[in-house]
Amino acid sequence: MAEGNRAAESDTGRLETFSDGVFAIAITLLILDVRVPHVESGLGSALLHLWPNYVGYVVSFLTIGVLWINHHRMFRLIRRTDHTFLVLNTLFLLVVAFVPFPTALVAEYIRVPSERTVAAVAYGLTGCALAVMFNVLWRYAASRDHHLLVDGLDREVVRQSTRQYTFGPIVYAVLTVLALFAPLVSLTLFAALVVFYTFPSRFNLSGTEA
Amino acid sequence: MAEGNRAAESDTGRLETFSDGVFAIAITLLILDVRVPHVESGLGSALLHLWPNYVGYVVSFLTIGVLWINHHRMFRLIRRTDHTFLVLNTLFLLVVAFVPFPTALVAEYIRVPSERTVAAVAYGLTGCALAVMFNVLWRYAASRDHHLLVDGLDREVVRQSTRQYTFGPIVYAVLTVLALFAPLVSLTLFAALVVFYTFPSRFNLSGTEA
Amino acid sequence: MAEGNRAAESDTGRLETFSDGVFAIAITLLILDVRVPHVESGLGSALLHLWPNYVGYVVSFLTIGVLWINHHRMFRLIRRTDHTFLVLNTLFLLVVAFVPFPTALVAEYIRVPSERTVAAVAYGLTGCALAVMFNVLWRYAASRDHHLLVDGLDREVVRQSTRQYTFGPIVYAVLTVLALFAPLVSLTLFAALVVFYTFPSRFNLSGTEA
Amino acid sequence: MAEGNRAAESDTGRLETFSDGVFAIAITLLILDVRVPHVESGLGSALLHLWPNYVGYVVSFLTIGVLWINHHRMFRLIRRTDHTFLVLNTLFLLVVAFVPFPTALVAEYIRVPSERTVAAVAYGLTGCALAVMFNVLWRYAASRDHHLLVDGLDREVVRQSTRQYTFGPIVYAVLTVLALFAPLVSLTLFAALVVFYTFPSRFNLSGTEA
Repeated sequence: MAEGNRAAESDTGRLETFSDGVFAIAITLLILDVRVPHVESGLGSALLHLWPNYVGYVVSFLTIGVLWINHHRMFRLIRRTDHTFLVLNTLFLLVVAFVPFPTALVAEYIRVPSERTVAAVAYGLTGCALAVMFNVLWRYAASRDHHLLVDGLDREVVRQSTRQYTFGPIVYAVLTVLALFAPLVSLTLFAALVVFYTFPSRFNLSGTEA
Repeated sequence: MAEGNRAAESDTGRLETFSDGVFAIAITLLILDVRVPHVESGLGSALLHLWPNYVGYVVSFLTIGVLWINHHRMFRLIRRTDHTFLVLNTLFLLVVAFVPFPTALVAEYIRVPSERTVAAVAYGLTGCALAVMFNVLWRYAASRDHHLLVDGLDREVVRQSTRQYTFGPIVYAVLTVLALFAPLVSLTLFAALVVFYTFPSRFNLSGTEA
Repeated sequence: MAEGNRAAESDTGRLETFSDGVFAIAITLLILDVRVPHVESGLGSALLHLWPNYVGYVVSFLTIGVLWINHHRMFRLIRRTDHTFLVLNTLFLLVVAFVPFPTALVAEYIRVPSERTVAAVAYGLTGCALAVMFNVLWRYAASRDHHLLVDGLDREVVRQSTRQYTFGPIVYAVLTVLALFAPLVSLTLFAALVVFYTFPSRFNLSGTEA
Repeated sequence: MAEGNRAAESDTGRLETFSDGVFAIAITLLILDVRVPHVESGLGSALLHLWPNYVGYVVSFLTIGVLWINHHRMFRLIRRTDHTFLVLNTLFLLVVAFVPFPTALVAEYIRVPSERTVAAVAYGLTGCALAVMFNVLWRYAASRDHHLLVDGLDREVVRQSTRQYTFGPIVYAVLTVLALFAPLVSLTLFAALVVFYTFPSRFNLSGTEA
């Protein structure tokens, strides 16, 4: 019995360690796309010319950082795991670890008018996949009468979290469609959205203070 | 005495942290082989052309993810470690960390008919090594009257796990031989196998629900 | 109630795991900028020619290492977190993970007299950002009557830490301004500063022995 | 008082997490030097031609793996840390994270007779630095009447560990000198040495069974 309890607790523990590892690596690998320019002279202006890389670094770092904060917050309400949940978490991490690719894509093509629509859409689709997988993870944990959640949680708290998390996919989907017509506006709004998420507020994902 | 117990427990703990680190890094490094294409125009079709890289990313991510889930599951039955076990786990991780290489190989050569057999065989051999090392690790832990396992485990549970784990090397070996004659069929089956493993079932590695 | 306590404690725990991950990755990625030279002959002198890369590796490794030691030390006084603190810690890690970039920049341009001022200033600005964010993190935790700190801390201990941490941004700012006029002197002092920080002393960040 | 104890214990805990991270990343980054060959035909022989990269990968993976096992074993005897110990551990990790560089160097130049002496010496010097730093770390912890060790340790056990660890720097120094005259013999012995270390034995670092 005691053994069973130990196993059940260590379960979430190791899942969080592994997830933290993937988050930490994905977020740190972003710097690999800010490359040292090779110039004979004019290093100063060459560095300024890299601005899309700096912006991409900051926006994607904050995106993964905010996701980590929310993943962390979600896991405070989760007590058990099962095989399906582990697989869903792996699929979620698959999208998290993918983020450096569309980030590099946007940084490379934002100054090429004919190609930046594709880059912005790729970025938006990745954002949609992140938000959708986050919702799937949470909804699965809360399904079947909260079968993976901490015991005795207030039903209203769970419902409220579910509502807040639903906000993400909708906004990302709208911005992705917008990217088809106005890629620069869409990318600017993606950046603004992430800054908005870093503020504590009852309107966003991170609304409920711990 | 209390000290001895503390040491014995922290033993598995740190082994898991280190292993989780290697799993997390190997799985996240896979994205480094999905590179931003450098084109003047036609970014959309250039991105579509990268499909083997996306498929390779997803399949190898799920392969390492499923292995992590099984490693995690295995360690819930393991309570002690010894020097040999630590070395065997290191050899297992050596293969896990190798996975990005054959993945990149297949992504690069799957469209070159004369070379893809070699790439598929390399992928298959890595899969075999993964499955074999996983079995070696488990069988060593369960050997000599379950000397590293949690005390009081049902013998039937252990025997059942051993049987299920044996499934892996056999299937991988068959697919590797198949790669010699039909590399594309073999690679498709490798992908299908991983998707199959993500489903909970009593026929696969992850059969016994926690 | 017990649940609440568990959550509050696991909070800091997982924040530290995630931060340790980012520190560990950023520090280890530094080696990627020490590249094997490709020469037909004269490997020995080619290796000696790489000295700025070795020095950059050591100085930045120690910089991140000392920061980790101080982050670690700070967290021994912190017991709770809130959303704002998690965001501030993410911003701090954003700068930590950025360090490999200015390091590579200095290693590449230190031998180009016309460009090394820019590289040294970029390095200095990153150092300033590190030191400022570290102070912001600490001051936020200690604000509003020590709202995130361990209960019952001696007010004098907190005030002393605050004073010591303030030392960092000032010194880095002075060295950054110096870089505009004497980049090599400034870079030498950055290196000396880090070596100084590795010594336990009541004059530096790490002054109070645990 | 209770707070003080908690802090003292979490001290070693977080040091181990951080160290495990650096070990895990350094060991996993080794695969980045096994690069996919770009050929029109003859992929099979191109892959065989990469043998020094595979050998380098395996030898360096095992070297870091054995070091991790010994670091892990050492920390079971360590209960406290202080600033100097944290700095020494950082210096030790600095060398661990450096290993991918000389490994890549040897893999690149082992087939160039005129240059391989330099590569083998660089590899040997890194090995010496690893072994020396490991000894410094241990000797510092055991110094001043075992001030950082678990209380009540048998003095004979400590002395025996000290003797065993001394073995490393001597052997590595001898092999490094040998590299000056016979690089291939020296490199073969480095590989043999690591395989030897993976066996449990009372003659090597890992001699005392847990």
